[in-house]
Amino acid sequence: MSERNRTVPRMGMVGGGQLSRMTHQAGIALGIDFSVLAADPRDSAARVCGDVVLGDDRGLDDVLAFAKACDVVTFDHEHVPEPVLRAVEEAGGLLRPGRRALRFAQDKLVMRTRMAELGAPSPAWRAVSAPEHVDAFADEHGWPIVLKAARGGYDGKGVWIADGPEEAAVIVARAAAEGVPLLAEEKVGFRRELAVQVARSPHGQVAVYPVVETLQRDGICHEVIAPAPGLDEEKATRAQQAAIEIAHALDVTGVLAVEMFETAEGVLVNELAMRPHNSGHWTIDGAVTSQFEQHLRAVANLPLGAPGTVAPYTVMANVLGGADPDVYGRYLHVMAKDPGVKVHMYGKDVRPGRKIGHVTVTGDDHRDLLARARDAADYLRGDDQ
Amino acid sequence: MSERNRTVPRMGMVGGGQLSRMTHQAGIALGIDFSVLAADPRDSAARVCGDVVLGDDRGLDDVLAFAKACDVVTFDHEHVPEPVLRAVEEAGGLLRPGRRALRFAQDKLVMRTRMAELGAPSPAWRAVSAPEHVDAFADEHGWPIVLKAARGGYDGKGVWIADGPEEAAVIVARAAAEGVPLLAEEKVGFRRELAVQVARSPHGQVAVYPVVETLQRDGICHEVIAPAPGLDEEKATRAQQAAIEIAHALDVTGVLAVEMFETAEGVLVNELAMRPHNSGHWTIDGAVTSQFEQHLRAVANLPLGAPGTVAPYTVMANVLGGADPDVYGRYLHVMAKDPGVKVHMYGKDVRPGRKIGHVTVTGDDHRDLLARARDAADYLRGDDQ
Repeated sequence: MSERNRTVPRMGMVGGGQLSRMTHQAGIALGIDFSVLAADPRDSAARVCGDVVLGDDRGLDDVLAFAKACDVVTFDHEHVPEPVLRAVEEAGGLLRPGRRALRFAQDKLVMRTRMAELGAPSPAWRAVSAPEHVDAFADEHGWPIVLKAARGGYDGKGVWIADGPEEAAVIVARAAAEGVPLLAEEKVGFRRELAVQVARSPHGQVAVYPVVETLQRDGICHEVIAPAPGLDEEKATRAQQAAIEIAHALDVTGVLAVEMFETAEGVLVNELAMRPHNSGHWTIDGAVTSQFEQHLRAVANLPLGAPGTVAPYTVMANVLGGADPDVYGRYLHVMAKDPGVKVHMYGKDVRPGRKIGHVTVTGDDHRDLLARARDAADYLRGDDQ
Repeated sequence: MSERNRTVPRMGMVGGGQLSRMTHQAGIALGIDFSVLAADPRDSAARVCGDVVLGDDRGLDDVLAFAKACDVVTFDHEHVPEPVLRAVEEAGGLLRPGRRALRFAQDKLVMRTRMAELGAPSPAWRAVSAPEHVDAFADEHGWPIVLKAARGGYDGKGVWIADGPEEAAVIVARAAAEGVPLLAEEKVGFRRELAVQVARSPHGQVAVYPVVETLQRDGICHEVIAPAPGLDEEKATRAQQAAIEIAHALDVTGVLAVEMFETAEGVLVNELAMRPHNSGHWTIDGAVTSQFEQHLRAVANLPLGAPGTVAPYTVMANVLGGADPDVYGRYLHVMAKDPGVKVHMYGKDVRPGRKIGHVTVTGDDHRDLLARARDAADYLRGDDQ
C-alpha cells in the first residue's frame, strides 16, 4: 500500500467485463485503489480502468499473482475454477466472496442441495445422469422438464427445455458425452420472474434492495422494473428474507443476486449469483447506493450504504447488439428524444444479440418508463431503422 | 478512431485534477474514448483513468500533441495560456470551449468589460494600475474595496480586501511589481452567494440547472445547497436567464458556472468558470444528468440531458485535508453513522486545507441535510478527533 493513504486497500477484480467496468466507476468515488485482471486489453473494463493487469482470468498462475499484489480480490464472473480459488486462499490470498461461498454460485447441484438443507423455497429438482432419471422425475412433475448443466454447459447453453422423453434422452446423452453433470427441475408455472439483491459484509451486516421484476425473452433478461409493480408486501418481505438468509447461510461477502419465480403461493429460488448482477443495474440511477458501490463496500468491509430508491420506479433495459456496429451514431436520436434516459455503454464490440449496454429511466409510472426504456434500447440496437 | 465504433470521438481533457477524474467517470457510461493530459501520474485523474498522457498541461508542445491525437479537447482548468490555445486552433485542433470563449474565464478585466457590454447585472468595477485609481473608485463606492488580479495573482492569492488607502497602495504596488493587472470592485453587501450551471452545445442548445446557494468561508466554497432555499422565483429565473445569455453571448461550449451575489434587489455576476465547477458537484447524486456528463455531451455535440433534480434538496460539502493523511481510516465511522451519505474522494495527497473530496446527501429538509453533510465532511477531515 502507498504511504499516502496507508489503509486504502488495493482491491482487485478478476475479469474485465462490464461488471468490473461499472465497479471501477464506483471505486473512483470511494478513492479505492482498484485493479482489474483482464484477459484482453479490449475487454470492457480494461478500456477504461487505470490499473489493468493482463492475464488469464481463470488460470492458476495469473490469478495467484494478481491476488498476491492485492489486499482483497473479488470477481466479475464465477468461472474461476475451484482448485485455483483454493490455491489462492492457501497462499494467503483474501477472496471475497470466498471459495466456499462461490461453490454455490458455480455448481447448481451444490446450490440446490444446500437450498434444500436450508428449507429455502425451491422448485422440485433432482440430479440426473440417465434418461430414466428424467422420465421418473417427469412422471412425478409432468412434462416439459427443465434440464440444467450443473456447471458450464455446451453449445453456449446451460439450460434446456425437454418436452418429452426423446428430447430429454438426446440432452442427457450429449451432456454425458461432454462430461457435463445435469439436474432436472420442474417447469414452474410462474406468474413472473423476480430478483433480489442483497449485500453482505464479512462481519455480517446486510443491506437488501427492493424486489424487482425481470422481463426475460429467450432466457435473456431484457428489462428490469424496480420495484416489482403490484407485488404484495408479504411476498416481497418473504423474498427479501430468503435472500438475506441465503447470504448468511452461504457466508456470502459482497452482492448476492437471487433470481426467483413468483407463483400463486409465494416465491421460489431459481438462480444465485455472487456479484453485481444485471438485475441490479437499475441501482446506479435508481438507488441511493448502487450495487457496484455496495459490492465494493462489502468486499472492503466498510459499512453498507442505504439501498433505498431515489424515485417511485426505475426501469432498466438492456441494449443488445444489432447488425450495425455504429451505436454511437444513434445517440443523437435517443438523447434528443428523451433527455431523461441514462445511457450506459460497455465499450464492447458489437455482435448481434450481445449485451453491449443498458439504459435506465426513473419516474412515477412504470408503464411509461418501460415504454421509454424499451424505445431507447431498441433504437440503440438499431435493427429497425 | 477505432474501427469498432467509427463515430465515437476521442475526447481529451487537459488537466489531471478532480474535474477530469469525475468527467472520466461520466465518460465511462457514455462509452466515449476519454483521454487525460496530466502533469503527474499521481494527479487525481491520472490515478484512475485508462488513457493518460503525461505532459505539461499548460505547455505548447504537449497540449498541441495531445490535441492532435484527439477529436475534441476540453479543459479541467483555465490555465492554458492564450498563445497555446491559439496555436492549437491554428493547427486545426478542436477546442471546446474555444479560445475566444476561454478568454472570458481567463481574464477578469476582459470578462467585466464584456459583462458591461451585455448589460449583465454586475458589481461596480474599474481597472486600476495606481493607488489613486483605487482611491477615486473608493470615493464613489466606499471602503472596503475588493481588489482582484485580472489573471493569476501572487502569494497564491488573486483576491484581496483593502480596508483603506494604505492597504490598497501596498496591494497595487505589489501587483505592479509582479506584473499582475488589477481591477477594483465594490464590496457588495450581499445576502448570500449563489451559483448557476448552464451547459451549452455547439449548435446552441442550453440546459440550465437550478440556482444553488454556496456557503463560503475564507473565500473557499465549503457547502452547496441545491436548490437555494427560499430564493424567490423571479430572482431564480433572472439568475438562470443571465447565465443562459452569458453562455450564448460568449459562445460557450460545455458547462459554464456563473457565481453570483444575491442582493436585496436582484443578483450580480461575480465569477465565471467554463468547466464543471465545485458548485455543481451536487449534480452527481442530486440531478438526473450530472454536470460532468452534461459537459461531455455538450463538448461531444450530443443533445443535452435533463438537468432536473432527483430529490427536493441536495447538499454537498467539500472535504478538506486535515493534519492526519489517513482519510480512509475514517470511512468506517462516517459510513456507519450515515448510510445515506455519498462519499467522493479525489485520490489526492492530503494537505491541510486542500480540497480532497466531497460528500453529498439528498432529502427533504435542507437544514438536516446540511448538518449531515457537514458532519461527514468534518469527520473525514479528522482534526476534531
